[in-house]
Amino acid sequence: MINVAILGFGTVGGGVAELLEANRDRVAQAAGDRVRVKHILVRRDLPGSRYAELMTRDVGTILNDPEVSVVCEAMGGLDPALPYVRSTLEHGKSVATSNKELIDAHGPELAAIARAHGLSLLFEGSVAGGIPILSTIRDACAHERFDSAVGILNGTCNYVLTRMEREGLSLEEALRQAQENGYAERNPDADVQGHDTARKLAILASLLSGTRVSSDQVPCEGIMGLEAADLRLARALRCSLKLLGVCRLAPTGLSLRTAPYLVPAASPLYGVSDVYNGVLLHGSTLGDLTLCGRGAGRFPTASAVVSDVVQCARNRGRTVECGLTGRDAKLADASAAEVRNLIRVAPSEASLAREVFAGAEEVALDGDPQDSAFVTRPMTERRCGEALAKLSTLRSRIRLLEAGA
Amino acid sequence: MINVAILGFGTVGGGVAELLEANRDRVAQAAGDRVRVKHILVRRDLPGSRYAELMTRDVGTILNDPEVSVVCEAMGGLDPALPYVRSTLEHGKSVATSNKELIDAHGPELAAIARAHGLSLLFEGSVAGGIPILSTIRDACAHERFDSAVGILNGTCNYVLTRMEREGLSLEEALRQAQENGYAERNPDADVQGHDTARKLAILASLLSGTRVSSDQVPCEGIMGLEAADLRLARALRCSLKLLGVCRLAPTGLSLRTAPYLVPAASPLYGVSDVYNGVLLHGSTLGDLTLCGRGAGRFPTASAVVSDVVQCARNRGRTVECGLTGRDAKLADASAAEVRNLIRVAPSEASLAREVFAGAEEVALDGDPQDSAFVTRPMTERRCGEALAKLSTLRSRIRLLEAGA
Repeated sequence: MINVAILGFGTVGGGVAELLEANRDRVAQAAGDRVRVKHILVRRDLPGSRYAELMTRDVGTILNDPEVSVVCEAMGGLDPALPYVRSTLEHGKSVATSNKELIDAHGPELAAIARAHGLSLLFEGSVAGGIPILSTIRDACAHERFDSAVGILNGTCNYVLTRMEREGLSLEEALRQAQENGYAERNPDADVQGHDTARKLAILASLLSGTRVSSDQVPCEGIMGLEAADLRLARALRCSLKLLGVCRLAPTGLSLRTAPYLVPAASPLYGVSDVYNGVLLHGSTLGDLTLCGRGAGRFPTASAVVSDVVQCARNRGRTVECGLTGRDAKLADASAAEVRNLIRVAPSEASLAREVFAGAEEVALDGDPQDSAFVTRPMTERRCGEALAKLSTLRSRIRLLEAGA
Repeated sequence: MINVAILGFGTVGGGVAELLEANRDRVAQAAGDRVRVKHILVRRDLPGSRYAELMTRDVGTILNDPEVSVVCEAMGGLDPALPYVRSTLEHGKSVATSNKELIDAHGPELAAIARAHGLSLLFEGSVAGGIPILSTIRDACAHERFDSAVGILNGTCNYVLTRMEREGLSLEEALRQAQENGYAERNPDADVQGHDTARKLAILASLLSGTRVSSDQVPCEGIMGLEAADLRLARALRCSLKLLGVCRLAPTGLSLRTAPYLVPAASPLYGVSDVYNGVLLHGSTLGDLTLCGRGAGRFPTASAVVSDVVQCARNRGRTVECGLTGRDAKLADASAAEVRNLIRVAPSEASLAREVFAGAEEVALDGDPQDSAFVTRPMTERRCGEALAKLSTLRSRIRLLEAGA
């Protein structure tokens, strides 16, 4: 019998409890032993709950129970998740968590504690929800050298952009719809400003590079400021518009960026819509490998946590290497990266834009005389920034995702 | 040190040798120990090869070398692959193979031998080349109940259909182009008749159902007989045309089919083109999960074999459960399955077709008066077959892939 404790009983924590019960036989088969939830840490009593008997408000009950071998952290945030996870590992219990903030900020430190105790720290649910992207990198393709990862990592933004594209909504309207349908938080800042994507990208980049990457190293733009006109331009260019996390490993170092991108129709990420997430990996021998699925939600995320519980159970007595290290990342000069850009300005500045972006191609816009739009030649981020500074009516600048990346 | 032997030195065998060398450090890190190729079984001497020193024509050298712990079978076919793999397991060595014919016909028997000896029999490369689909089902999502798998599993057919669609080629022209580009064998029968897809589907279905499914249980149609007109019809319906392997688990039993399907634009498989493969799984808690990548070729397949070698190395002394069992599969009545169909007949039979497929919707074909085409209502395979028997000018019948499958 594998005894599990769950810290937190919100969407994910409750989902883990339900899933362990609903898929009991399948989980037992996968884990090689029956798995049961012995304790659930809650902040306040929930007397009506069918799990009421398992609930405790004292984390010590869990830490000091020698029968508990795996703890699922589903509280989110750093306080008290960080001290609780640290104590859990120090008390000899493995941890499965979907907490991207925790892993982004403290993953390497916690992984070192886990290793020192012969335990595992796993966090499949922290990136792309139910998509087994971390175990693909860590286990299934452990022998592969991946040199890039490009991901649609935030379901809220993808839902908003899909509504804007399909229904011509403004960003504000689409966001309101997302909130009404439960796809966006009441305060969606971390999603729409790109911070959530940057955190997930930092975790992916850490695993790909074998170095310590944190989200504050990721140049980050969100989707605020995008307008219905940008979606129309994307369509005119046979592209979709996606908030991406992009990571590339090159001899010069690691390139990172979170920003809206135009994704061409030939890309496997082109059609990843609504709340779905998708990650496109490129490996030296595999070539392109794409995984798409539900990136958020109660059961997809809980499923990822349960998959970590299964890995812990299968590997009792040894560490499942999670891939986080304390080695410093070698970052490439972000301003030297080359990129093509979609530039949208007022028609009054069309001739100036033509001048500062020499060689740019104008995008024909049927019956939309309020904008002039151009696609630039490949240019460095630095030169693009300098050129943009000369324009006073810039309405948008969106990067193009190049093929084969 | 993990000592590996390779049986066969063709495309895949040579690729495995090269990859183990080129990714040496990464493989060692993944496997937890250095991996070296100690022997390569060849049918004839290759004195110029850089691996000449490792080559042997005597399988006994490999079987009787106690240092060899993993054998990669890359000969293909059943003779002598079957007796060699059996002997390898009986001599206490784990096996990694990409041989779908072997696994389809004898997988459960070989898996039982492996289990009895505490060894592993792994075959990631047998389905969808470099895409880690089997380990996703077996490991990453071991706790998940998958109730369907739909796959584009044959790169040759997908390449042919993509050329027909994009360039308006006939099947014969597209197939010739595939052969010229090395994407089709000189004798492409197993590919274009669907047998290759049926074998891979049988392996997927075995893992999903936990029962013994073999390809002769899969109703199988290939792509021969498809015409440029069918691709034009697909486009008119906003669908792509793909050779699919479809497996569904229901309380009534397992439904299996290999056939060309119309794939709607909303499906994650819609845009999987050229030699790429894609598999769409549906899980009870994960929902849709799609994996796409290179389904064939030297390095993608070799990469899958190496991933199995790494799993064997990580789990020395114990069996990595491959998921094949000897339990009989419970098959659903294939003739009772409901499906919508695209029917193409000569215009002279349009009114008869309208009659036998009551309620079918006509597909408008611009300037193509040689055909009349209809999309039927959902109907059982049996009723559709009865209706088709009444037509004398049937030109094609293509199933529609329903959403959410």
